[in-house]
Amino acid sequence: MDLDELTARLRAFADARDWHQFHNPKNLVMALTGEAGELAELFQWRTPDESARIMTDPDTAERVRHEIADVLAYLLRLADVLDVDVIAALAAKIEVNEAKYPVRLAKGSARKYDELD
Amino acid sequence: MDLDELTARLRAFADARDWHQFHNPKNLVMALTGEAGELAELFQWRTPDESARIMTDPDTAERVRHEIADVLAYLLRLADVLDVDVIAALAAKIEVNEAKYPVRLAKGSARKYDELD
Amino acid sequence: MDLDELTARLRAFADARDWHQFHNPKNLVMALTGEAGELAELFQWRTPDESARIMTDPDTAERVRHEIADVLAYLLRLADVLDVDVIAALAAKIEVNEAKYPVRLAKGSARKYDELD
Amino acid sequence: MDLDELTARLRAFADARDWHQFHNPKNLVMALTGEAGELAELFQWRTPDESARIMTDPDTAERVRHEIADVLAYLLRLADVLDVDVIAALAAKIEVNEAKYPVRLAKGSARKYDELD
Repeated sequence: MDLDELTARLRAFADARDWHQFHNPKNLVMALTGEAGELAELFQWRTPDESARIMTDPDTAERVRHEIADVLAYLLRLADVLDVDVIAALAAKIEVNEAKYPVRLAKGSARKYDELD
Repeated sequence: MDLDELTARLRAFADARDWHQFHNPKNLVMALTGEAGELAELFQWRTPDESARIMTDPDTAERVRHEIADVLAYLLRLADVLDVDVIAALAAKIEVNEAKYPVRLAKGSARKYDELD
Repeated sequence: MDLDELTARLRAFADARDWHQFHNPKNLVMALTGEAGELAELFQWRTPDESARIMTDPDTAERVRHEIADVLAYLLRLADVLDVDVIAALAAKIEVNEAKYPVRLAKGSARKYDELD
Repeated sequence: MDLDELTARLRAFADARDWHQFHNPKNLVMALTGEAGELAELFQWRTPDESARIMTDPDTAERVRHEIADVLAYLLRLADVLDVDVIAALAAKIEVNEAKYPVRLAKGSARKYDELD
């Protein structure tokens, strides 16, 4: 199973349910922010250290995997309807960031990093 | 280039800059919601129809690809530090959703869909 | 009841439950994004026209009011722990925006508006 | 200046620029998630302790006040177009939460709190 197959399965899932009427890019972006929000809720009251141990509880680990999957699902559906190659898009963005945050300047600095966003 | 290679490149990018100190799961989830918010800003004033034509302007198309890449980057970094296999997680979630939203009941219905989230 | 009284009630609510340990600004911002995500979920599959009629169904209207209240609650808690006067902050921001988006240039233009964010 | 006056000023601001065409509830919710994302970006790489000291730097403090103001602005615009009284909505939600999280059970517990959302 790879990203292309998952993208095809998600498309078939929407096809079978007549859900393409709902899957315009605007709606999919909203759904993505909704799922990102659900992921945030799993981490909001945990300290950074507790967040690093979140997978030790099996039930919470399962919820984390589900929310990560939901974010990825809507991201792939969005890329599919916009005809974006996510692998190529990310590879290109990494090149941009390598030029923008040279190791020499960015090393260990939250401030530099902060400004990148 | 596939997801595993991108994950490795993102990890090496953070390594080289001593950024692992910032990349705990809690921080990465916040960064993900920040990028999801930037994606939302590109679509917020567009109608659903305009959102479907967003890639026709080359500059806007580039911004959309960059924001999709940013969301994917933080999602992969998060999965990496949590040791989650995103492909397996999404495949498992699709199975869950297939059981939860049988075609017969969910067909063409925003309401059923609504309740799934 | 005004904003100051609500802020005081929310503080007392957290006091009584020993929740100040969880209410640092970082956590409160995450909780705010979580609630914004829940609000998004109520609107994600609705067209803009349907979104304008969302209060006609009493149950959905109640959910909308609750989610708006949750966003406001975390925004007021955040402002409280950061000692920010939200009324003054918004009044100041409106002045900034009035200078930045003069009526003459911004009138009827989504593009200008887009650039403001 | 109180919330009603700010709501009226925000409405007049949109009126003067012919922006009501963009200010349907769906779009305003997206704009709110976008601003919540910008707020998250200010806090994402800070530790909880650093987040508690964020207002000590005057420039960062100004950005925090602006982002809090932006979230409030879209929340008030949303409430205005939906005819929701935010003060009453929050007062009602606090009553609901007081019944739902009795002090006796919720005291000092992140877990209980977690489940409330």
